[in-house]
Amino acid sequence: MRVVVLRIGHRLVRDYRVTTHVALVARAFGAEKIFLTNAEDDIKKTISEVNDRWGGSFEVEEIANWRNVIREWKGDGGKVAHLTMYGISVDDIIGKIKHDKQLMIVVGAEKVPREVYDLSDYNVSIGNQPHSEIAALAIFLDRLFAGRQLKLEFQGKMKIIPSAKDKVVKTGEAS
Amino acid sequence: MRVVVLRIGHRLVRDYRVTTHVALVARAFGAEKIFLTNAEDDIKKTISEVNDRWGGSFEVEEIANWRNVIREWKGDGGKVAHLTMYGISVDDIIGKIKHDKQLMIVVGAEKVPREVYDLSDYNVSIGNQPHSEIAALAIFLDRLFAGRQLKLEFQGKMKIIPSAKDKVVKTGEAS
Repeated sequence: MRVVVLRIGHRLVRDYRVTTHVALVARAFGAEKIFLTNAEDDIKKTISEVNDRWGGSFEVEEIANWRNVIREWKGDGGKVAHLTMYGISVDDIIGKIKHDKQLMIVVGAEKVPREVYDLSDYNVSIGNQPHSEIAALAIFLDRLFAGRQLKLEFQGKMKIIPSAKDKVVKTGEAS
Repeated sequence: MRVVVLRIGHRLVRDYRVTTHVALVARAFGAEKIFLTNAEDDIKKTISEVNDRWGGSFEVEEIANWRNVIREWKGDGGKVAHLTMYGISVDDIIGKIKHDKQLMIVVGAEKVPREVYDLSDYNVSIGNQPHSEIAALAIFLDRLFAGRQLKLEFQGKMKIIPSAKDKVVKTGEAS
């Protein structure tokens, strides 16, 4: 399954760190790309540095108009899942979503236009309490890939060896 | 099981939004309290407003010294799980942690002192790629409570009725 993420409503400066976390979660949990409106160059740079050290080919694409990106995705046969506290519970709908071949996950900042609810094939809640789009994206991808994304191999220069007390990092360089 | 969260390394202003997300995730996913060093008053205010509207009695406690808070917790027989990309994989250790009666989950900002690794009973990774302490906390609590936290009832003034396309909120007031 191809999975991409669309982040809408990013506010310059104010949302910089939260949007960076959204992008890092998308990468670490198995999406292949994030579309961002108004991305600061620093976000692209951070992700590019992470790919360089930790592996993978996760992409950040800056876009001018998110409506066009959604419509184009749907025109190509892709489905769209919008994460919102008002939606159908993830555990009630994820079984259906797993059958899709191409999925775009939409995560908004504070206010999401009504149009997003209508354009989406699924409006999905991760619990019905206010929390965080970062947490929502992580739980959604975890459910979608049934936990397998935590074992993904990224083939980077650096690789962590899990440890009870220490930081053990294997580097690709000869010692 | 009693679960509390300790957020360390919060940097004023810079981490305000991320720490707020950490606190909201702790609340929504079933922890009873968060301890914060250097908390801005705005974080307390945000959580207090969320409790007021959405229910529950989640607490924010500002602390002066996180070492003392960890030691006191352990002195009372509580266990400590530190979330770090370097730790033991969550799926390999959560079965053991589920037997604990009192658990403190430690989430750091960028740099976490070595001492935290040593003071913790468990250093736990949510995958071994860099991502987000917000996502890590959400996945950890989701594993700990086996998804049940998404169905928690908070008994607030407002309650969401899950919906495929609309925002449906039930309020406690008579119409």
